[in-house]
Amino acid sequence: MKLATYRDGSRDGQLVVVSRDLTTAHYATHAAHTLQHVLDDWNFISPQLQDLYVELNHGKGRHVFPFDPAMCMAPLPRACQCVRGAAYASHRDLLAQAGLAERLPDGRVPDLMQLGSDALQGPADELVWAGGALQLDFEAGWAAFTSDVPAGCAPARALEGVRLLALVNTWVLRDLAAAEAAAGVGAVQSRPAVAFSPVAVTPDEWGDAWAQGRLHAKLQTSWNGRRVGFSDAGADMTLHMGQLLAQVAAHRPLRAGSVVCTGPVSAPPTGDGATALWPDGYHCVQAKRAMEVVQTGQAVTGFLAAGDTVRIEMKGRDGLSMCGAIEQTVHTLGD
Amino acid sequence: MKLATYRDGSRDGQLVVVSRDLTTAHYATHAAHTLQHVLDDWNFISPQLQDLYVELNHGKGRHVFPFDPAMCMAPLPRACQCVRGAAYASHRDLLAQAGLAERLPDGRVPDLMQLGSDALQGPADELVWAGGALQLDFEAGWAAFTSDVPAGCAPARALEGVRLLALVNTWVLRDLAAAEAAAGVGAVQSRPAVAFSPVAVTPDEWGDAWAQGRLHAKLQTSWNGRRVGFSDAGADMTLHMGQLLAQVAAHRPLRAGSVVCTGPVSAPPTGDGATALWPDGYHCVQAKRAMEVVQTGQAVTGFLAAGDTVRIEMKGRDGLSMCGAIEQTVHTLGD
Repeated sequence: MKLATYRDGSRDGQLVVVSRDLTTAHYATHAAHTLQHVLDDWNFISPQLQDLYVELNHGKGRHVFPFDPAMCMAPLPRACQCVRGAAYASHRDLLAQAGLAERLPDGRVPDLMQLGSDALQGPADELVWAGGALQLDFEAGWAAFTSDVPAGCAPARALEGVRLLALVNTWVLRDLAAAEAAAGVGAVQSRPAVAFSPVAVTPDEWGDAWAQGRLHAKLQTSWNGRRVGFSDAGADMTLHMGQLLAQVAAHRPLRAGSVVCTGPVSAPPTGDGATALWPDGYHCVQAKRAMEVVQTGQAVTGFLAAGDTVRIEMKGRDGLSMCGAIEQTVHTLGD
Repeated sequence: MKLATYRDGSRDGQLVVVSRDLTTAHYATHAAHTLQHVLDDWNFISPQLQDLYVELNHGKGRHVFPFDPAMCMAPLPRACQCVRGAAYASHRDLLAQAGLAERLPDGRVPDLMQLGSDALQGPADELVWAGGALQLDFEAGWAAFTSDVPAGCAPARALEGVRLLALVNTWVLRDLAAAEAAAGVGAVQSRPAVAFSPVAVTPDEWGDAWAQGRLHAKLQTSWNGRRVGFSDAGADMTLHMGQLLAQVAAHRPLRAGSVVCTGPVSAPPTGDGATALWPDGYHCVQAKRAMEVVQTGQAVTGFLAAGDTVRIEMKGRDGLSMCGAIEQTVHTLGD
């Protein structure tokens, strides 16, 4: 099942069911107005949406309209929480090797960041920032939207709490991120926004690409129209989604509608030192800069500038876009 | 105006208007079901609630019932975000002097922590934890519930976004907090819960005790029935609430329903070194331990244990409880 939230002038938007091929949609008003309502009462509401989804895929439904990703807000435009984990250890290893690691996890506490969830961005929302020396970066990954998850549960139990998956872009001001990590304070100022793909998708839609909490599908990240990352998101995922959720829920329950993100997708290099190569590319500029340091001793790629675009998409084995694409443009405040 | 959220089996509860003396209440269903709805559309909805509040205070109203704080959830049982600032510099100075500071703010980034806001606690909710060596502590302070606040605005403009004030207890697992700060990761595992007073109160109710973003009223904190802190929350507040909000909103807007907390209320000592005294007491155990280190070189007060109780209240100049009391008991998981 594929769900999206259509812009309607309200803060939470209107829930729509989207066809598998992302061509048509239908308001879900008969069952629920918002995705939060669905997550609050999944077992009761989701079968009604599933019925509508089946109709849509058969070209039926009474008030079907063409699906327009430009109309989408984030699937949950405001969530009760959003946490960014660090599921890909090769990303951390790369930064450490290049001396660019912001955080120094010590094994006792996991690399988690609580992010603001009051204004989660839709797939085409602009990233507006103050510009200057703040070093704007993107991080392409994916996220789970959960049901209730009990405190202290095992990863396998936590994994049962995954209701929907979507793509995510967590924006970072690297200059502030480094300062925050050094000071031991939270990632509040350095994380100005988190953006989501137009569509959130139930795990069953991925077939065997969704296996043991990992998404074995290719994540494509483009920067200014050039594809810079093309990675199997599953192969090198160190912690699966159930493990991430269990980390967050170690000492407290998670309530329905919690959003947990993977951090940037990453893969280890072939070769090492000056001969290291990353054939899958990168999903954040910081990773590219770390690769340059490892290869040549110097980072040359700059961070993002006004007018830059970022595009993130994931396709199924049949070549269909699974969640639609995040396509954002960077603007400077006051422009 | 005083507002509370009554338990009704739903996740968000039912909004009630509470009389000034906290003796009677009235469902606000005619105007809004939840406090989030009120904050979303404050200018339209709040006058209707104000009318009801005036009636209540005059002993009128058609369906008045006795107000029972035990029926209260948090004023916002789930919020779109909750951030903990550090408004009292004497707390930071005390910890630094005792060598117990978890965070090392460097002046470039403020001491902010994004907290989970999916399950904000009501005033009488139990704190359930795993026990052991995790060093459970409370932090008594107060919080603002906001309307929309624009990104990058000045503190005076941010202060205009304050809609309601309430007391807050941010629970901390000190052992994990220190590890998280040292690693530069977020305060995710170390902050298992945040609890609120039964009632949230508009700034005008405080009269001249609410001045320039500071609350000049006495905060009373009791631990196991013994009053351990009794401080003017305004006198030594280094950053006022508008400054805290502006810190959080430095690079992103805050949406209505954001909750920003002060961190533990604190006052500087009289005297110094072995002769230092804190006549106002303390509002977290970590502060008490730091006082002991400064005075004698050794912390002797232990952290919380199962069965411990914490009570936090603030009274107006007329002796009336402004927000009702937070009264929580600590339980160990599985008890």
